[in-house]
Amino acid sequence: MDTAEAFLDGSTEMMSGGRGKAALIWPQCPPAGSSQKHGQNNGKPDPRQATDFSAIYGKDLLPDRDGEELTQGFLQALVNILLAHVKTTFDRSTKVLDFHHPHQLKEGLEGFSLELPEQPENLEQLLVDCRDTLKYGVKTGHPCYFNQLSSGLDVVGLAGEWVTSAANTNMFTFEISPVFILMEEVLLKKMREKVGWAHEEGDGIFCPGGSMSNLYSILVARHRYFPKTKTQGMTCAPRLALFTSEHSHYSIRKAAGVLGIGTENVFLVKCDKRGKMIVSDLESSIARAKAGGWVPFYVNATAGTTVYGAFDPLPEIADVCERHGLWMHVDAAWGGGLLLSRRHAGKLRGIERATSVTWNPHKLMGVPLQCSAILLRQKGLLQECNQLCAEYLFQPDKHYDVTYDTGDKSIQCGRHVDVFKLWLMWKAKGSEGFGCQVNWCLENAEYLFNKLEKRPDFELVCKTKPEHSNVCFWYLPPSIRAMSRGPQRNSRLHEIAPKIKAAMMEEGMLLIGYQPLGEKPNFFRCVFSNPATRKEDVDFLIDGIVRLGCDL
Amino acid sequence: MDTAEAFLDGSTEMMSGGRGKAALIWPQCPPAGSSQKHGQNNGKPDPRQATDFSAIYGKDLLPDRDGEELTQGFLQALVNILLAHVKTTFDRSTKVLDFHHPHQLKEGLEGFSLELPEQPENLEQLLVDCRDTLKYGVKTGHPCYFNQLSSGLDVVGLAGEWVTSAANTNMFTFEISPVFILMEEVLLKKMREKVGWAHEEGDGIFCPGGSMSNLYSILVARHRYFPKTKTQGMTCAPRLALFTSEHSHYSIRKAAGVLGIGTENVFLVKCDKRGKMIVSDLESSIARAKAGGWVPFYVNATAGTTVYGAFDPLPEIADVCERHGLWMHVDAAWGGGLLLSRRHAGKLRGIERATSVTWNPHKLMGVPLQCSAILLRQKGLLQECNQLCAEYLFQPDKHYDVTYDTGDKSIQCGRHVDVFKLWLMWKAKGSEGFGCQVNWCLENAEYLFNKLEKRPDFELVCKTKPEHSNVCFWYLPPSIRAMSRGPQRNSRLHEIAPKIKAAMMEEGMLLIGYQPLGEKPNFFRCVFSNPATRKEDVDFLIDGIVRLGCDL
Repeated sequence: MDTAEAFLDGSTEMMSGGRGKAALIWPQCPPAGSSQKHGQNNGKPDPRQATDFSAIYGKDLLPDRDGEELTQGFLQALVNILLAHVKTTFDRSTKVLDFHHPHQLKEGLEGFSLELPEQPENLEQLLVDCRDTLKYGVKTGHPCYFNQLSSGLDVVGLAGEWVTSAANTNMFTFEISPVFILMEEVLLKKMREKVGWAHEEGDGIFCPGGSMSNLYSILVARHRYFPKTKTQGMTCAPRLALFTSEHSHYSIRKAAGVLGIGTENVFLVKCDKRGKMIVSDLESSIARAKAGGWVPFYVNATAGTTVYGAFDPLPEIADVCERHGLWMHVDAAWGGGLLLSRRHAGKLRGIERATSVTWNPHKLMGVPLQCSAILLRQKGLLQECNQLCAEYLFQPDKHYDVTYDTGDKSIQCGRHVDVFKLWLMWKAKGSEGFGCQVNWCLENAEYLFNKLEKRPDFELVCKTKPEHSNVCFWYLPPSIRAMSRGPQRNSRLHEIAPKIKAAMMEEGMLLIGYQPLGEKPNFFRCVFSNPATRKEDVDFLIDGIVRLGCDL
Repeated sequence: MDTAEAFLDGSTEMMSGGRGKAALIWPQCPPAGSSQKHGQNNGKPDPRQATDFSAIYGKDLLPDRDGEELTQGFLQALVNILLAHVKTTFDRSTKVLDFHHPHQLKEGLEGFSLELPEQPENLEQLLVDCRDTLKYGVKTGHPCYFNQLSSGLDVVGLAGEWVTSAANTNMFTFEISPVFILMEEVLLKKMREKVGWAHEEGDGIFCPGGSMSNLYSILVARHRYFPKTKTQGMTCAPRLALFTSEHSHYSIRKAAGVLGIGTENVFLVKCDKRGKMIVSDLESSIARAKAGGWVPFYVNATAGTTVYGAFDPLPEIADVCERHGLWMHVDAAWGGGLLLSRRHAGKLRGIERATSVTWNPHKLMGVPLQCSAILLRQKGLLQECNQLCAEYLFQPDKHYDVTYDTGDKSIQCGRHVDVFKLWLMWKAKGSEGFGCQVNWCLENAEYLFNKLEKRPDFELVCKTKPEHSNVCFWYLPPSIRAMSRGPQRNSRLHEIAPKIKAAMMEEGMLLIGYQPLGEKPNFFRCVFSNPATRKEDVDFLIDGIVRLGCDL
């Protein structure tokens, strides 16, 4: 099956394993014009027969003069593999992953060699490599992939990525990205409206991930209060302090390290047992910082924490920020999607008072990776903070309106086009459709919560109904339930989740994450962001954990 | 032609315009199993007939229970559009761009609306939107696109991107990116070997663009000499100085701003008339900095400057760095590709003495955007500098070797998979193939240089044979040639390139960049990184500039 024939139906190898029924073969997609006879193409194999790519090489493709049909044949064969992958991704009878240890993969499984050659390899080998890459990877769109905040495989989003890569351009200037630059403007405006800034001019930019968006927020805040740091560095600023909750994302501390502020100057504000920032502790942290000679300038509030999915009390935090004249950032990387749901948007009440917002459509909205935006209420600051006016890119004497050359706002130079997939998905779903999708994810979480609440063999970390789609819990095998609560039990319990996870990865039918938090031993965190996941998958998750863990 | 029928052959609309022959229609690729009759699919239109997507919506695709065939039909229709785009990209009879001003595009050309709806739009509209997005964009792979250092549309690279987006995963852990994490390791090792560090352990990471790679180099250098800055910030460091040439990329200054070092603490070292750093000026800049109370710690040498394509004298700079104990970074974002050419690798002699190297395969090597690496000679520093050990991602008690969870090296959290396309292209070309491609690009540059050298209506900015594929020149229309040299002529000459560029964009058959540099009035910079470009295109460029500019 390692011949090119396999590619005509996308191969079935990747569909093996799994629960229940055998996988169907994706209907064959014949290459175009397949009636033409072999041998009419300057002696080269006729790509439209597509029976053998083993004598065809990359150099035979476009821009080679005779490369047109070969290019079509090769890309079509590749697409057939991808179509099969898309199909199996949603097929519950297939595995989420086919686990191998690093050393096993490096040894070259079934001829899958990762090593890079001096001489070209043929296109058939490349197609086999593509298939193997997907085969030994993880199906992040599988209904039973609960491992990360980003999951799912949105078909329209995927189409958007394919278009983006065919366009193969860069976001720095309108000159080479006219359509995408305008789409970014439209999207940023729409997202600011959803935040509640419809009546302000506003600003923003798409960034390679939420950590970078959060970094931007601190960078621009610093520039707002201490603009000379751009030219003179941190030596011209006082000892700055910023504030974020102990449950917030680590990217706030990471950014403080990068920006020369220092991770120790990030004050970690305490959270209540649901993971929400305690505003009185924010107040006292600010007082403590001021007393200690720090100059507070920035507060990060989280709308949807990474582990618990908690929402900080935004209105109260906004009051504090107003009172102290501090920049209020809301990290809504995970929670931002709720703004599109009428049912859940109220959980972000107060976000309209923020100075900046991080919002990752690649999380709850299911947009392919990466897609993250930093939104700013005030126009101009971002440009002022970052611009250096490189003359080879941002010529002021162009014949069009150069305010559309937005690349100098960025701390990158070249910037990947992350907007098109989101734009296309927004067209496909409408705001309404995104809202339904978000509701669906949260319904799944509530279903899991309700199930676990009733079971003696599971214990919920937070006893209250989840506000987001995170559900955190321990599985308690009989051996644990037999123990009395205390350090010894906790230390045993700490080992349960990793052991179940190991077995789960070896088996491959499910994937869910775990972690400790503070004093709490390892617990599972289930998150729902994949619209493919249904209640039957939640049941399968519960059953799977019990099956793998009951004898531990 | 706005019906779905158009998508069966990828539509011909985007092929209109252009020089010479009329564009061919890409052979029709019938959807799979097209013999099945309409109406067998629960009353929904049969996607495999693919005659009408106007009643089909995103929600009808997978994961919808009946979405399998519709998904195949939709993606196949999309692929047909993309195949047509690929074909026209290389078709010299088509335009490079179909220019419209921002306000024109925003008004909605021929029904192409950028606005985002509340309600879903149908899949036919989405396909039309995809086609329009490509139609009004810029064909960066066109043989006559000379505008940026990144150009071309590598078919295998494109295939790599399509696979990457179907995999839709994240580079932070081996757990969810087993294959891609190992491919990154293999690629970084290979690239370090080409740099000349085969016998050292080394390190590195792929970054979203060369500016970020350069930022990493300064960040890690700072950590190497002043590790407490991570936790305490720049207040614990002396007043740092870093050095880079006046022709180097602006990202060095931008990074200094971001990192809290300050753009003013970047010393710009003078260049000779070919754009190479003057080492004696580096020496005296270092002395000046030390005398002024700065602490020098970092020198950036450029291997392939952005405008001239100049190579700084690396061995001499390495001597200076050694003598003063400074971190030597080589920004080979643009020049790194030459390391793969036996003929040209010698131009980077001395790079093996660098402490870190930036190398962007998305430039000279033609890898789709983005693909950039920061390479480090010393293992461990990157991890030490950036790690924060977030427990929800980097659990130490996993059942596999967690040294492969490389995400904590990054300043991002989520990280796009930029390695697969490069890996696949390396398989397709081999190191040898990349070498040939690089040679081809430099031959085109030499051809242009030789042509212009002989012409009285052009003036070369650098009179010596280009070392890289950059050729910088003024076009001198008769009106300019009639003037005597001096400020008045320069001020008139300064307007020529923008005017030609404006006419060129309106016409759409060519695209080339221009900029001033220092005292020099606007000049064109031609760069070759597209293997599709042939000598006939170089001739077409020269003729085009004369045609558009001779009456100015």
